[in-house]
Amino acid sequence: MYEKGFITFSVDPDDGRVRYATLTPAGRAKHDEIKAVALERQRVLLSCLSDAEAQTFMGLLLRVHGNLPNVEKATQAYIKEKGPKAITST
Amino acid sequence: MYEKGFITFSVDPDDGRVRYATLTPAGRAKHDEIKAVALERQRVLLSCLSDAEAQTFMGLLLRVHGNLPNVEKATQAYIKEKGPKAITST
Repeated sequence: MYEKGFITFSVDPDDGRVRYATLTPAGRAKHDEIKAVALERQRVLLSCLSDAEAQTFMGLLLRVHGNLPNVEKATQAYIKEKGPKAITST
Repeated sequence: MYEKGFITFSVDPDDGRVRYATLTPAGRAKHDEIKAVALERQRVLLSCLSDAEAQTFMGLLLRVHGNLPNVEKATQAYIKEKGPKAITST
């Protein structure tokens, strides 16, 4: 992103160890372009649902997404119990 | 999968152009192992929802999944309308 001129870096005046990345005007324009495509894709993706269904779906999806760390923990516990053979493809 | 001994190939006796891939016993065992992990991951993933919520979620997810081709079509139409600049990162 830096090479493409979308961000610049600056150093914190109070702490030289800290660097900040800032969007340039070109970077902000690119961000807006990408966001517009993403919103259009989301709009079409959910267009097969009613407004109420889409709201329900997004609410449930957020809860499931928040639960992902437990899936990883459970997978590790499963491997530990069943042995790594259970998921490796040797 | 062939190199690992999980499938074998055979030729259709009625049409030599057709080859069939068949799971070996080792391939079937590996399939069952992977499926067990996948089911455990799905169980934990949905464990943050009630049974009714999980059923609603899966039903909506299937509809949204079936709608994916329209998202690709709409993306292509969007690019055509706004110009490829809208999503390429030049």
